[in-house]
Amino acid sequence: MTMSKRDTYTPDSLLAVAVEVFNERGYDGTSMEHLSRAAGISKSSIYHHVRGKEELLNRAVGRALDGLFGILEQPEALSGRAVQRLEYVTRRTAVVLMEELPYVTLLLRVRGNTTTERWAMERRREFDQRVSELVKAAAAEGDLRSDVEARLATRLLFGMINSVVEWYRPDAKGGSEREQVADAVVRLAFDGLRA
Amino acid sequence: MTMSKRDTYTPDSLLAVAVEVFNERGYDGTSMEHLSRAAGISKSSIYHHVRGKEELLNRAVGRALDGLFGILEQPEALSGRAVQRLEYVTRRTAVVLMEELPYVTLLLRVRGNTTTERWAMERRREFDQRVSELVKAAAAEGDLRSDVEARLATRLLFGMINSVVEWYRPDAKGGSEREQVADAVVRLAFDGLRA
Repeated sequence: MTMSKRDTYTPDSLLAVAVEVFNERGYDGTSMEHLSRAAGISKSSIYHHVRGKEELLNRAVGRALDGLFGILEQPEALSGRAVQRLEYVTRRTAVVLMEELPYVTLLLRVRGNTTTERWAMERRREFDQRVSELVKAAAAEGDLRSDVEARLATRLLFGMINSVVEWYRPDAKGGSEREQVADAVVRLAFDGLRA
Repeated sequence: MTMSKRDTYTPDSLLAVAVEVFNERGYDGTSMEHLSRAAGISKSSIYHHVRGKEELLNRAVGRALDGLFGILEQPEALSGRAVQRLEYVTRRTAVVLMEELPYVTLLLRVRGNTTTERWAMERRREFDQRVSELVKAAAAEGDLRSDVEARLATRLLFGMINSVVEWYRPDAKGGSEREQVADAVVRLAFDGLRA
């Protein structure tokens, strides 16, 4: 029996607690008991909200994926030269990653064998694939260097963007700090370190 | 009692098995029992080689760190313009990462509370710090852009380099393939994607 507080959770606030535990212990290493302890409510109270931990994972990575795929539907990602669309997608991906930090962190760490984990990995690959097509289109329009293969360039680009989850922690500056980091990502990715 | 084969392990071959298990299960999640099963020899045979799993971790991350710090001692890293030294260090870091893939992967994933884990994290920060100083020196010499702060630039640079562990798997091409990836890292990091 765990110490229980009154269950005042909303779907979002319970999800926030669960994602924190998943990121801390790994999804596989997290039991309903761990979730119950972290939330301070009983397991049966959690089952009142969700069918189980896989539903929580589904909602958490779904939130990250909605943020990322949403970028590709915005007008700036849909028309104009490919290099400009790619710049827009790069900047916005970095911003979404910082805005939805714990959810994207979880998405990037998911590896595994449940249906939800496989689905998340599949959707993530699909997003990478969409960006890789933009890289190819921009190279075909002559705006990107042609001496680095598009797939490799996309991997390194995501490597740089995604690494932000390793060290970014929101501070009081909030939005302006995120824009600053996203600016740096775009500058380095497109024009490099060299003066 | 596990099924045991004759113990023909050398320190290096036992280390290779252990690192694979650490990378698969996480260091914390690995017991001597897991190591014994993966190696196919008894726990007491393993204790004949090492005092315990922390010694294996120490040797594994030590190998990665020796490779990385070795770069900083090479002549090309010690003299010349800072931007050229930084380019050299970037290229060699990418190559060492691919040559010592499982060991560097383990080093990058270490987070924890044992003395060895803390030591590894400390040494890794020290390496980053040394590279960050090169970035600052190159900016001071006017060779790097000044509109991205050195510490942020270093983080994004390592983000790109280190992401190679996520997808790189050695193939038959070996050295030439590694040089190709390292070339791409240097091109994108210094000159960016843009044509």
